[in-house]
Amino acid sequence: MHIKGYAVRQAKLSLEKFEYKAEELGAWDVEIAITHCGICHSDIHLIDDDWHISQYPLLPGHEIIGQIVAAGARVNHLHIGQRVGVGWQRSACLKCEQCLAGDDNLCEESHATCVGHYGGFAESIRTDSRFVFAIPDRLSSENAAPLLCAGITVYSPLKHFHVRPSMKAGVIGIGGLGHLALQFTRAFGCEVTAFSTSPDKEAEAKSFGAHHFINSRDPSQMQTAAGKLDFILSTVFADLDWTGYMNLLKPRGNLCFVGAAASPVQIPVFSLITGQKSISGSPIGSRSAMNEMLEFAARHNIKAKTEVLPMTEVNRAIQKVRDNKARYRMVLVN
Amino acid sequence: MHIKGYAVRQAKLSLEKFEYKAEELGAWDVEIAITHCGICHSDIHLIDDDWHISQYPLLPGHEIIGQIVAAGARVNHLHIGQRVGVGWQRSACLKCEQCLAGDDNLCEESHATCVGHYGGFAESIRTDSRFVFAIPDRLSSENAAPLLCAGITVYSPLKHFHVRPSMKAGVIGIGGLGHLALQFTRAFGCEVTAFSTSPDKEAEAKSFGAHHFINSRDPSQMQTAAGKLDFILSTVFADLDWTGYMNLLKPRGNLCFVGAAASPVQIPVFSLITGQKSISGSPIGSRSAMNEMLEFAARHNIKAKTEVLPMTEVNRAIQKVRDNKARYRMVLVN
Repeated sequence: MHIKGYAVRQAKLSLEKFEYKAEELGAWDVEIAITHCGICHSDIHLIDDDWHISQYPLLPGHEIIGQIVAAGARVNHLHIGQRVGVGWQRSACLKCEQCLAGDDNLCEESHATCVGHYGGFAESIRTDSRFVFAIPDRLSSENAAPLLCAGITVYSPLKHFHVRPSMKAGVIGIGGLGHLALQFTRAFGCEVTAFSTSPDKEAEAKSFGAHHFINSRDPSQMQTAAGKLDFILSTVFADLDWTGYMNLLKPRGNLCFVGAAASPVQIPVFSLITGQKSISGSPIGSRSAMNEMLEFAARHNIKAKTEVLPMTEVNRAIQKVRDNKARYRMVLVN
Repeated sequence: MHIKGYAVRQAKLSLEKFEYKAEELGAWDVEIAITHCGICHSDIHLIDDDWHISQYPLLPGHEIIGQIVAAGARVNHLHIGQRVGVGWQRSACLKCEQCLAGDDNLCEESHATCVGHYGGFAESIRTDSRFVFAIPDRLSSENAAPLLCAGITVYSPLKHFHVRPSMKAGVIGIGGLGHLALQFTRAFGCEVTAFSTSPDKEAEAKSFGAHHFINSRDPSQMQTAAGKLDFILSTVFADLDWTGYMNLLKPRGNLCFVGAAASPVQIPVFSLITGQKSISGSPIGSRSAMNEMLEFAARHNIKAKTEVLPMTEVNRAIQKVRDNKARYRMVLVN
């Protein structure tokens, strides 16, 4: 069996039509007829080999939704015809300390959906069903696809770092990740502050759940939040004044990175010690967190705001992401 | 009433005999006849005005043990004749969010025992009994005095950051704080690794409870701990290769600073994200943690290793601390 999709032959080029021979369907595998696939910034980083882990030809896409059309002999938690999703992670060893603890996303032997394997910018995919997730009926495929990477990436730290309804949460950056983080923190019951360098995003940030909007380029606005926040989630790639954000934390507060700032974070040690503060980071989420997040999103009507383009226009869609013009997530549709 | 002690007239000078008129004994206050006072590195920082918070004449000393000889009308949890201790903190507002939550050490209006007040290098002190702690009988005054600052400083993060018996803990620096951190982490049930640049401290580090000793200047020894530690406590003031220590952490591990490294900590964001790791800091401890720590130290026979000098030799004792020759804590005795 051959699968058709769009791949890039070498770093930084445009995607081209591509066809590959699918691996045989293993006992744990399912074959999914892809209906939707979100475009994540990580796809751009992979296309450009920014992280020096890319393998070409590279067929991106790891916010996949589709229907199961075939299943291996040992698959019994999903069934043919079911609507399912696939995210960044395609496998883990399932036997190391992290996997045993349910933290399979932290497994050292985990593999990515589109590194060394072909991803979701395609008509279908064969992949390990143990990293395939049922999509709750109440979520539309278009709005749910981005939950499989952007959504879980912002949800997992809220879970792991014990964000509670009584807390005051901040979200830095109102993009693909940030607009979901605003919705999740609001649904968690938090008082939510959005930080952005784009004042024109205020109304929309509030529509996503922010109680407050701060133009982070305005020191006097920043000062209004000094010492007030329990948890700040940074979703941006830019190098910001992190010590300034530390000053917005309450004692015991936590500044958590899900966006990888380009330069090392520099923090005066006293700004950690004085208020018993933390800085932290978080990558995607475990399978357990993924199921929890999808159910939570369905219950609270959390949806990615998306722009849809046909899969055939993948390069145009990627360009919108590169130009930072996606509001807020591009989703390709077959 | 006048109190005699030893104070410094301006930054970096030697201490001289000093006498001051004690404040009237307030309703919540006790007067303590000081028998022992430990010397903390913070005292040196205060003497030298390193933190630009010193007020002169400055009478240092905040690891105080003595007997209550007078008590104000409202003191009813301590009694005259009782052996008690005083640490870094002399007061808090007792009404802010942090105080209400039991985190009085994080109160913004907290005051220090020897900043704007006269401390423990003296014959006695009058201070708020609500920040005075009963010393369990099983602890000797000489060995317990350093618990009141060094001890609580290393104990509090173990409590707050949820160090558990199953964990593998590292302690950077085998000095006044570090030698107590080794004892506490060992008594917590952890597997304990000591990190030091002084290979001659190996035997003693092990006597304090370390299972393993790593010469941190030896990359091959450092490599043996890669990815193995849940919690690392840094007790040093030096600027070390913090990214190297991050690599010793397991997923979800935490590198916690109780020693204030001189330069800002620099951490690549990916080293936080990949393993969902944290860096953090911690200052002294709450009153609740202080009582818990003292009881725990008594139960587990945790004691500061001390060298005693008479209070009259305060300058000689301070010089030993400056020269990093105290093994491991100098205690002045009246």
